[in-house]
Amino acid sequence: MKAGKFLFFILCLHVSLAVIAASLQTCPADIGKGCGDDWEGEFFPGIPKIKYEGPSSKSPLAFKWYNGEEEILGKKMKDWMRFSVAFWHTFRGTGGDPFGAPTKMWPWEDGTNSVAMAKRRMRANFEFIDKLGVELWCFHDRDIAPDGATLEESNANLDEVVALAKELQGKKIHPLWGTSQLFMHPRYMHGGATSSELGVYAYAAAQVKKAMEVTHYLGGENYVFWGGREGYQTLLNTDMERELNHMARFLEAAVAYKKKIGFNGTLLIEPKPQEPTKHQYDWDAATAANFLRKYGLIGEFKLNIECNHATLSGHSCHHELETARINGLLGNIDANTGDPQIGWDTDQFLTDIGEATMVMLSVVRNGGLAPGGFNFDAKLRRESTDVEDLFIAHISGMDTLARGLRNVAKLIEDGSLAELVRKRYQSFDTELGALIEAGKADFEQLEKKAMEWGEPKVPSAKQELAEMIFQSAL
Amino acid sequence: MKAGKFLFFILCLHVSLAVIAASLQTCPADIGKGCGDDWEGEFFPGIPKIKYEGPSSKSPLAFKWYNGEEEILGKKMKDWMRFSVAFWHTFRGTGGDPFGAPTKMWPWEDGTNSVAMAKRRMRANFEFIDKLGVELWCFHDRDIAPDGATLEESNANLDEVVALAKELQGKKIHPLWGTSQLFMHPRYMHGGATSSELGVYAYAAAQVKKAMEVTHYLGGENYVFWGGREGYQTLLNTDMERELNHMARFLEAAVAYKKKIGFNGTLLIEPKPQEPTKHQYDWDAATAANFLRKYGLIGEFKLNIECNHATLSGHSCHHELETARINGLLGNIDANTGDPQIGWDTDQFLTDIGEATMVMLSVVRNGGLAPGGFNFDAKLRRESTDVEDLFIAHISGMDTLARGLRNVAKLIEDGSLAELVRKRYQSFDTELGALIEAGKADFEQLEKKAMEWGEPKVPSAKQELAEMIFQSAL
Amino acid sequence: MKAGKFLFFILCLHVSLAVIAASLQTCPADIGKGCGDDWEGEFFPGIPKIKYEGPSSKSPLAFKWYNGEEEILGKKMKDWMRFSVAFWHTFRGTGGDPFGAPTKMWPWEDGTNSVAMAKRRMRANFEFIDKLGVELWCFHDRDIAPDGATLEESNANLDEVVALAKELQGKKIHPLWGTSQLFMHPRYMHGGATSSELGVYAYAAAQVKKAMEVTHYLGGENYVFWGGREGYQTLLNTDMERELNHMARFLEAAVAYKKKIGFNGTLLIEPKPQEPTKHQYDWDAATAANFLRKYGLIGEFKLNIECNHATLSGHSCHHELETARINGLLGNIDANTGDPQIGWDTDQFLTDIGEATMVMLSVVRNGGLAPGGFNFDAKLRRESTDVEDLFIAHISGMDTLARGLRNVAKLIEDGSLAELVRKRYQSFDTELGALIEAGKADFEQLEKKAMEWGEPKVPSAKQELAEMIFQSAL
Amino acid sequence: MKAGKFLFFILCLHVSLAVIAASLQTCPADIGKGCGDDWEGEFFPGIPKIKYEGPSSKSPLAFKWYNGEEEILGKKMKDWMRFSVAFWHTFRGTGGDPFGAPTKMWPWEDGTNSVAMAKRRMRANFEFIDKLGVELWCFHDRDIAPDGATLEESNANLDEVVALAKELQGKKIHPLWGTSQLFMHPRYMHGGATSSELGVYAYAAAQVKKAMEVTHYLGGENYVFWGGREGYQTLLNTDMERELNHMARFLEAAVAYKKKIGFNGTLLIEPKPQEPTKHQYDWDAATAANFLRKYGLIGEFKLNIECNHATLSGHSCHHELETARINGLLGNIDANTGDPQIGWDTDQFLTDIGEATMVMLSVVRNGGLAPGGFNFDAKLRRESTDVEDLFIAHISGMDTLARGLRNVAKLIEDGSLAELVRKRYQSFDTELGALIEAGKADFEQLEKKAMEWGEPKVPSAKQELAEMIFQSAL
Repeated sequence: MKAGKFLFFILCLHVSLAVIAASLQTCPADIGKGCGDDWEGEFFPGIPKIKYEGPSSKSPLAFKWYNGEEEILGKKMKDWMRFSVAFWHTFRGTGGDPFGAPTKMWPWEDGTNSVAMAKRRMRANFEFIDKLGVELWCFHDRDIAPDGATLEESNANLDEVVALAKELQGKKIHPLWGTSQLFMHPRYMHGGATSSELGVYAYAAAQVKKAMEVTHYLGGENYVFWGGREGYQTLLNTDMERELNHMARFLEAAVAYKKKIGFNGTLLIEPKPQEPTKHQYDWDAATAANFLRKYGLIGEFKLNIECNHATLSGHSCHHELETARINGLLGNIDANTGDPQIGWDTDQFLTDIGEATMVMLSVVRNGGLAPGGFNFDAKLRRESTDVEDLFIAHISGMDTLARGLRNVAKLIEDGSLAELVRKRYQSFDTELGALIEAGKADFEQLEKKAMEWGEPKVPSAKQELAEMIFQSAL
Repeated sequence: MKAGKFLFFILCLHVSLAVIAASLQTCPADIGKGCGDDWEGEFFPGIPKIKYEGPSSKSPLAFKWYNGEEEILGKKMKDWMRFSVAFWHTFRGTGGDPFGAPTKMWPWEDGTNSVAMAKRRMRANFEFIDKLGVELWCFHDRDIAPDGATLEESNANLDEVVALAKELQGKKIHPLWGTSQLFMHPRYMHGGATSSELGVYAYAAAQVKKAMEVTHYLGGENYVFWGGREGYQTLLNTDMERELNHMARFLEAAVAYKKKIGFNGTLLIEPKPQEPTKHQYDWDAATAANFLRKYGLIGEFKLNIECNHATLSGHSCHHELETARINGLLGNIDANTGDPQIGWDTDQFLTDIGEATMVMLSVVRNGGLAPGGFNFDAKLRRESTDVEDLFIAHISGMDTLARGLRNVAKLIEDGSLAELVRKRYQSFDTELGALIEAGKADFEQLEKKAMEWGEPKVPSAKQELAEMIFQSAL
Repeated sequence: MKAGKFLFFILCLHVSLAVIAASLQTCPADIGKGCGDDWEGEFFPGIPKIKYEGPSSKSPLAFKWYNGEEEILGKKMKDWMRFSVAFWHTFRGTGGDPFGAPTKMWPWEDGTNSVAMAKRRMRANFEFIDKLGVELWCFHDRDIAPDGATLEESNANLDEVVALAKELQGKKIHPLWGTSQLFMHPRYMHGGATSSELGVYAYAAAQVKKAMEVTHYLGGENYVFWGGREGYQTLLNTDMERELNHMARFLEAAVAYKKKIGFNGTLLIEPKPQEPTKHQYDWDAATAANFLRKYGLIGEFKLNIECNHATLSGHSCHHELETARINGLLGNIDANTGDPQIGWDTDQFLTDIGEATMVMLSVVRNGGLAPGGFNFDAKLRRESTDVEDLFIAHISGMDTLARGLRNVAKLIEDGSLAELVRKRYQSFDTELGALIEAGKADFEQLEKKAMEWGEPKVPSAKQELAEMIFQSAL
Repeated sequence: MKAGKFLFFILCLHVSLAVIAASLQTCPADIGKGCGDDWEGEFFPGIPKIKYEGPSSKSPLAFKWYNGEEEILGKKMKDWMRFSVAFWHTFRGTGGDPFGAPTKMWPWEDGTNSVAMAKRRMRANFEFIDKLGVELWCFHDRDIAPDGATLEESNANLDEVVALAKELQGKKIHPLWGTSQLFMHPRYMHGGATSSELGVYAYAAAQVKKAMEVTHYLGGENYVFWGGREGYQTLLNTDMERELNHMARFLEAAVAYKKKIGFNGTLLIEPKPQEPTKHQYDWDAATAANFLRKYGLIGEFKLNIECNHATLSGHSCHHELETARINGLLGNIDANTGDPQIGWDTDQFLTDIGEATMVMLSVVRNGGLAPGGFNFDAKLRRESTDVEDLFIAHISGMDTLARGLRNVAKLIEDGSLAELVRKRYQSFDTELGALIEAGKADFEQLEKKAMEWGEPKVPSAKQELAEMIFQSAL
């Protein structure tokens, strides 16, 4: 494709969204210089800085449970949570779905995908972050800056936008993580690192190289690999073993490059079982761990667990977090949720108190997530089209997790759930138990004991009591 | 429990099945000495030795596709398949389900769970094997011989039945594998190796020790660990990390004992995602592989892949087989299938030709399964209550897989599917491809290439053509 | 089967459970006359009458949210809830599952299924009901009294037990509903009303006839049809149309008989999608409604919605309740829940506050459930083996729904959720809206308006705000 | 939105696809006049007219099983099948998915969504139909002609394209059905007939009115209502009862308008359980039937069953077809399939022989589908980007169903499966059976018989035999 054509493509794809948007929502020209490239006003004029007002507040634009500076379990809430805004969902989410055109028509969008527009959008991002009162953000390379006609041009676009982001970040704000988006463009239709085409593998490597550089430049604390299309649609046309070998080589190269540029952030893999492919190679935490161990990469990566991905893989979110944790791999959480009856990724903001409490149980057991945190990989419903909905959704998600943390504190203070678990295993807190756990009890010894003891007594598991205690803390 | 009470329990549990059975089906007294302990006649009097009659046969008691001595792809069909009869489903399956009492009333059952009855049942087993024309069988310890009032008594019962089995096996027949049944008895309600009770852990060890010994004695080629209840019902009352550590210690001890007794058979783990627990620790092939790698057991075990377990874990059976294969872990196949709309283990005999062909593709790629094979871990539907149904089901399952093998031979002969795959990856059959695959291409080199080449060309994946070629071979 | 053999069968089936139980738990001989048939002591000696102590209580044997006499939204809590104990789960649940023998060993069980044992168990039931503080119970015919060798004998057994139940009920207690159990016995393996065998159809009719009589005699307010095995395992051997016709004829006859004996209770159908069959004919609320409409039975039946069945059919429980309600069919609720990751019926006690609140929203909109109520069709986990677990589970389930009711009251008082919904539809609260809703707006009129108005304005659905308001009420 | 902006939007949306396409695939300028608006050459220059060559053919561009003029079971294959090409998937499918931009770049596309482009595309459609050798096609209004700035302009665009289609149809070809596309445009984000906005309801009515007119004009035999977004995302913000009432009013008005314009085609509802909404109101066949019955519409509509929708709703495709058939509602089939492990609509071409055989069993029992037929509501995989893939996919789908029909003929000729089913129910082919089926057997009569007969005999269901017979016919 020639550069001219490509730019026209890029232009049009985004113009369409903006134009349709403009038909439904008027540009708030009165509050800034206008809706053109020269927008200089406030992006969220009616929205105050979000404050903690406590559980009795009726305001949708206030925190009822999240109070960043409040100390819980020996740490400030904000340090337990480390909330981050996801640039792509919040600023590039269009509301499109497989059966529907975009519905979001934010007033600051001018219908172009120009660098100028990208920069204006970045300003909106930092106003949003500021008003929400968080200090971290996450980004995909191609979502913050437009694709160019060539890789060089794409990189130049990225540099220009990133320079502005650096400036806008100031001293307080930096990326929780960055990543490269290797799934939207048709070139990636067979995957990036696992594409059947060598040229695509090379292109993906170049894109990741650049994204790692800018993440490092912006002070990012982690770098994520979401295997967007690393997977297969059918085994009939796929050499799975060869593709997995390629993926391992790719990640090895990423590790080497990280070290070369002095980037000390954690590398994260984000498991997902399906969608867009029938089978994504990073299916779940255990699958990703097996991959890392098989290829000797286990010390170089941690996992970014997403709750919606967890449930799509047949596990509870809590299970995936615990699996990551006990494999020493819990690095970050994509804070969202799915619908228990839906078989695809809905990326909803988490509002279930029980689930939030279990998520926070894992986080507390892990001693927190730093240098990872909670990224809101969650999007407004397609039908939620008011600017304020962006704030309501984030506040609701933050409050839910904050409530989860408060519940964990109650559970820990109460102590009876931990005691129930401790008692269940107390027969191993014995001499023979210690031998077994040290790998020093062989089958002959154990058989002798079994014969000596006769039929073992097996007490109740007290599941209903555990559920009652848990529910009482909510 | 005192021995007397226990025996009464054992007696009654089985009497009940037999008595109810006797109400629906008369004892074929005319064809043997009777239905009592002294049964000496044929167990399957109306059933001939099953023969290959070819696809045009209309007989339900003949093979239409399986011809054991016929050579396909350089090997006899029987050597590709290595079919085995599962003692538990075929001879201890009662037709009970969570909402229903037993329905099977085989004429040879006398309503007891005595050693005498166990021995008569064993004779039925070998007549069945002989008539079906296979040479392998699989067993659970507690299904072939009755539990005793003590572990010693259970072991003695087992020895008595096993001695008969050894005799009946003759020179031609032996176990594909043995295993121990660690899930029916209430003592195992929290698991065996992962029970919260140390006494149960020891009991399980003793039971596995004995089962390994008898498997070895009978000439078994493999030993299977099906983690019947190794898992959890809720994380609220579970210390998952501690339980997994216990499981690893248990398996280490099993490896040590295997070596001690000179058993050279393969140890196999059988993945299953759920049921009876909410989460079984051996969820799927990748999960089991991660466990083995984490605890340094990877060289000591292979996997026994069950198709129904595969689909319950969200994968195709072919996927699980390929995952096991490329991890070097494909050891055995539990040949059955589930219902695509059902969320529990139905253990049906496989009759889907397409699935059978994909299964055999993996087997052929693996160079066969020996010393593993295909165990029919499949059961009659609860409503199938004729003795002949046992034969019909096995014949149907064997024919389906045999048809799968014939289809694979057609696919290989035709060659176009393999060619389609080869072509997809040919860009890696180049100098740079070789460098990448050798781990010698770093991000800087790749970026340089990507910039030099510009936008990569990405050809069609030809999935519909692959499906057409595949379907044409059926 | 001869009567003697049959009794032996019945005897043994239950002996086995008790004997094994006795091995793990000693008979509390010191607190009553003993564990034999002559038991006369308290069944739950350590358990007090359960009282309301409020949310701050730490006692597992007290209500924290349920306060029966307290008035909420104009009605006493006990009248909103109408809680009922399910005899079968609470007193006949054994803890058996497809992979495991029974685990429950209640001290009052003597190992027989005699009429005497049935009567003792019935006394335990009423002590349980009394201590729990409810006034309703539900039963299956075959679970409260033993099967006999003939139908006549079964009926006589039932009469004897029912007479005692009538006496024990006193003036305060009566059945929420009764039903007949048409699924355990092998005769029902192909269904009851939809069995392929006419003799079974007749037997089922006789059993339902009797069960309706005793429900009426005991003052039952409803009679339930749970289509235990009314469904198919495979369409290959099934004439679905004929089976559905038979089911309709069966229900017509039930309606006629109800009227004949003067039973004024509501007849209820309980939808369930699967299990034990691949397809149950009463799949979900809409399927049952279609069946009732097709066969002209719509005025004669209501639905008994079970939350776990709802989620197994792919719906939320709230959806099924609302579907039943707007079809005029919401008659009763089986209060339980499933596990969102499990594909079979787990029948757990509901402890999710959010779900409970949505359930109670439907109940309040329905103006309550009377003459229906909440039946605890929920069972202890297999691993919960203490007698007190029975109480803990019921208290937890009652408290959760009570908390749901309190949350609904908060939502109604707050009013903002209802207002959000009202506003969404306000464009229909207009003249043209009224015409449309009256069926008086034809396509030509509407087209004219559409052209006149041009592009319609479409506001945000405010889902995140709705979720925030909902969560704030929890 | 002003007309100018809207046209720009429309222009751009489609330009983008074409431009990117053009970058990967060169315009075959040498075989026609060019790739501009004046294209006059062949659209599929390398593709011959597809012919029947029989099962031994290796050509991907020939039928191996479908031979339209061949008579099977008393009817020509083409009359059993009535295959139709779906315009939207075949000519408007872009390969876009929620994570990816379009990948299809057909050479005849010029990057505009102009009327001229729509007309050229229509010519491609008829060349495709001609080469494939079918006589029917299906269309969505907005996919065959561009949206205009106003409804009037949209209608004018539609008229212009439809006039050409009419001309190109000639005497041999006509629509199997038409429909209106009420889901892509943001105005339909809350649904069409069930939108919370009255203006949208009116707009939808106008659009359906026009689509019915053009379907009638083109000689369409049916008109389909696919409830694209008729459903809800959450019950928290939804008045389900009011929305369903609106839907009924809307369909009543459609019936009235159909009669008014003299359109005699069948009106069809297409069930789908989910996607894009959490709950689609036409969940499955039984749900749609209940709706039709509740609102007195049962005589005016039939169902269009889609196999992929069937499996997403938890049923087999065969089940949904049989449910529609025995409710007198089987009108049309959307011939596609899903992936058994995937929880969203994949709309794949059906290549499973077993499933195809079961589908054709229902069709044969229904005496065919006319005036309905098989519409290929199936799309190429996103990664299938060659023009020939369009042909390969359709040929594969047609061959698979043709093979299914041939298998049904074998099953019928063999007769043993039908005989097995007949025998299962033979106890009802008796005097009492006839009384029962006539609704003349009351509970008292049946009880008397049950007591007279004693324990009923219940034979085996022979499921494995049924499966063996079925599999042998494949």
